[in-house]
Amino acid sequence: MSTLELAQAAKAASHTLAVIPADRRNEALERMAQMLEENAEQILAANAADVEVALGLLERGELSSATVNRLRLSPQKLAEMAASVRATAALPEVTGKVLERVELDEGLELEKVSVPLGVLAVIFEARPDAVTQISALALKSGNTVILKPGKEVEQTATVLVGLIRQALIEKTLPEGAVSLVLGRAAVAELLGMTELIDLVIPRGSKQLVQYVQANTRIPVLGHAEGICHIFVDEAVDAELALAVIADAKTDYPSACNAVETVLVHRAVAAEFLPKLAERMAAAKVLLLGSDEAATLAGQVGPVGDWNTEYGDLTLAVQVVADMDEAIVHIHRYGSGHTESIMTTDASHAERFLREVDAAGVYHNVSTRFADGFRYGFGAEVGVSTSKIHARGPVGLDGLTTYKYLLRGSGQLVGSYHGRDARPFTHVKKPV
Amino acid sequence: MSTLELAQAAKAASHTLAVIPADRRNEALERMAQMLEENAEQILAANAADVEVALGLLERGELSSATVNRLRLSPQKLAEMAASVRATAALPEVTGKVLERVELDEGLELEKVSVPLGVLAVIFEARPDAVTQISALALKSGNTVILKPGKEVEQTATVLVGLIRQALIEKTLPEGAVSLVLGRAAVAELLGMTELIDLVIPRGSKQLVQYVQANTRIPVLGHAEGICHIFVDEAVDAELALAVIADAKTDYPSACNAVETVLVHRAVAAEFLPKLAERMAAAKVLLLGSDEAATLAGQVGPVGDWNTEYGDLTLAVQVVADMDEAIVHIHRYGSGHTESIMTTDASHAERFLREVDAAGVYHNVSTRFADGFRYGFGAEVGVSTSKIHARGPVGLDGLTTYKYLLRGSGQLVGSYHGRDARPFTHVKKPV
Repeated sequence: MSTLELAQAAKAASHTLAVIPADRRNEALERMAQMLEENAEQILAANAADVEVALGLLERGELSSATVNRLRLSPQKLAEMAASVRATAALPEVTGKVLERVELDEGLELEKVSVPLGVLAVIFEARPDAVTQISALALKSGNTVILKPGKEVEQTATVLVGLIRQALIEKTLPEGAVSLVLGRAAVAELLGMTELIDLVIPRGSKQLVQYVQANTRIPVLGHAEGICHIFVDEAVDAELALAVIADAKTDYPSACNAVETVLVHRAVAAEFLPKLAERMAAAKVLLLGSDEAATLAGQVGPVGDWNTEYGDLTLAVQVVADMDEAIVHIHRYGSGHTESIMTTDASHAERFLREVDAAGVYHNVSTRFADGFRYGFGAEVGVSTSKIHARGPVGLDGLTTYKYLLRGSGQLVGSYHGRDARPFTHVKKPV
Repeated sequence: MSTLELAQAAKAASHTLAVIPADRRNEALERMAQMLEENAEQILAANAADVEVALGLLERGELSSATVNRLRLSPQKLAEMAASVRATAALPEVTGKVLERVELDEGLELEKVSVPLGVLAVIFEARPDAVTQISALALKSGNTVILKPGKEVEQTATVLVGLIRQALIEKTLPEGAVSLVLGRAAVAELLGMTELIDLVIPRGSKQLVQYVQANTRIPVLGHAEGICHIFVDEAVDAELALAVIADAKTDYPSACNAVETVLVHRAVAAEFLPKLAERMAAAKVLLLGSDEAATLAGQVGPVGDWNTEYGDLTLAVQVVADMDEAIVHIHRYGSGHTESIMTTDASHAERFLREVDAAGVYHNVSTRFADGFRYGFGAEVGVSTSKIHARGPVGLDGLTTYKYLLRGSGQLVGSYHGRDARPFTHVKKPV
């Protein structure tokens, strides 16, 4: 089937899937998990073939060893994938929820109900677990999905999607609910299908996300980068700040919620920066910064710019005159992801929380908390730095929209305007 | 100032406006309303100049008389505009609301708070009241706005925006919160400003909306067309159905929520269609339809296609085998706006409500109810046929997003994973 035919099938299947009860979708997820267990040998063989190709590319310097590691499956990893599918099945249902109910007039009741978005297109890179995780999230939320894997994971993805479709057929769900497209040309085709695809989710490098954002008019859920700041206020518990900065930088440096820049209030810079330099040196973190920061801290190299996501053990430091300057810096160079203030002054904290425009604004806590699981969503669909639809860590809710149902008994709009117009009652009802 | 400078000023002003208390924004709206009253003469003079140019274009056939009518202000219309600004000021505040509150752990509390989107760009055509209405909705929701009026209303819009900015200055709000750009080149510039503008709202013809949708990667709130259907089920109260169809077609034929196509179940078509033909003839509605519909109803011309928004007293009729065929027709030709079923069978109704994918799905009621005021929103920002962010009639809420505030006491992510990991509590708190 062509990409267009697959997308048309996904659209048709989305109408079916949207009305299939939750327990039937959960049963299909359970069958999916079993399939992964029953067919481990076949999956690992396909993965070994992908890995072999990748190792050849690694030798020729055309692929990084990090990519090869992300690509490689093991029996244990496969068991984790099956467990993750079951965990998704166990999450609360997100569609069919009555969000609001309003009586417009006697016998005329409006209901706002959550429904699936429709068709998702997910474009990802080397991770085989993305196939099962995303398919599970899609089916759990009543959506259908078209998967476009990176070239390096094509053989594994083909086997996995084959098994998922077999699980769908066995559970009499539409097979077209999960499909796979391969090759670079398919990406351009998918990005042009504004009538068939409701949401595009790019999963991978900054380059991939930016390419997708720049080449489609379909809404995109994701973030190209995470340039997170920690502002060290003039009223600060230095030890607390050092611990939080160390956590935010070193816990997982390549994560999007890791800190990239520390902004230090000038009033405490002379005292705080040498401590920061010492702490970072102990953690093998390279400091880069302004001349002023270098003079105060020592051991600080010159910073290139203020909007680089280092993604490793590198941290930029800047001295700012006050909170105003810190906020201007954050709005200018930040990516709207997560920003934190370290202060012992509650009014300073509240001002920062109020004024900073980002998906997450924190007080006395590590930026690394920006995560769907830590927020208690049970699952994370992605992190959005867009302000539209979903912002910050996105749970299953982010894969839903709503529709308005209006139940009447022959009401005419003509009765509600003009002379002798009937008034609306607009009475909120319990949901 | 250039369009870019105005947009940069709007962005800077958006950070200020987002933290200005509601009462100060409401005071500015009251001052705006007074300004309209105090400067009626100046506004009407500018409008007269616009109308004079428009009349010249009308004579040369370059403008429709409908456009000239939409353009023309009167003292009464101006008073209505001022009243509408005051009504907007009186609406409940939509920003700063705590939407969710969750304890992640002792002393670590997450709060989801509604905040303004930021900068709106509104591209509209001939209506001068759009200037005051949109500026009021933007300020009420803490957003800033860049207005691009149609050429025919430029002089009126320039005077109105001048007065609004004066009201902002008098109330010490940032003047850059409302600005005006003129000329076709400015539209292309605005649509390219993905970093500065958060939402584009096109207001006007289908052509305008489609042009905007096709030429920007900024999220767009709006709808290019409203192709709404009414399905007459086999179990139907014919009189009720005829009354609802007449209302949905004739109450305001150019509205996006007017019905364009009636789908009639074959089991009742022979009985229902002649009655429909008679009722529509009495209402001077031209019927177009399939051969089968024409044979049964008489007085039915051939239909060109099934996805034309007539916007006048024209109605397409089609005979369908059953509800399945009706739903397939709706999903194929509908615009996802509003769809209604006329039936006396409750289970048929519920099936239609569940299965039809549209912003509004109705039972026994006119499609014309799809409207923010009728839904009880107090104001309507627009109607969205997108599934992302806001769907259907959109109230002031549609101009907000949210941010997550996290208040802690030095928590580190490192404590919550690995050996001896602290568990999260994830306790929902009252808001």
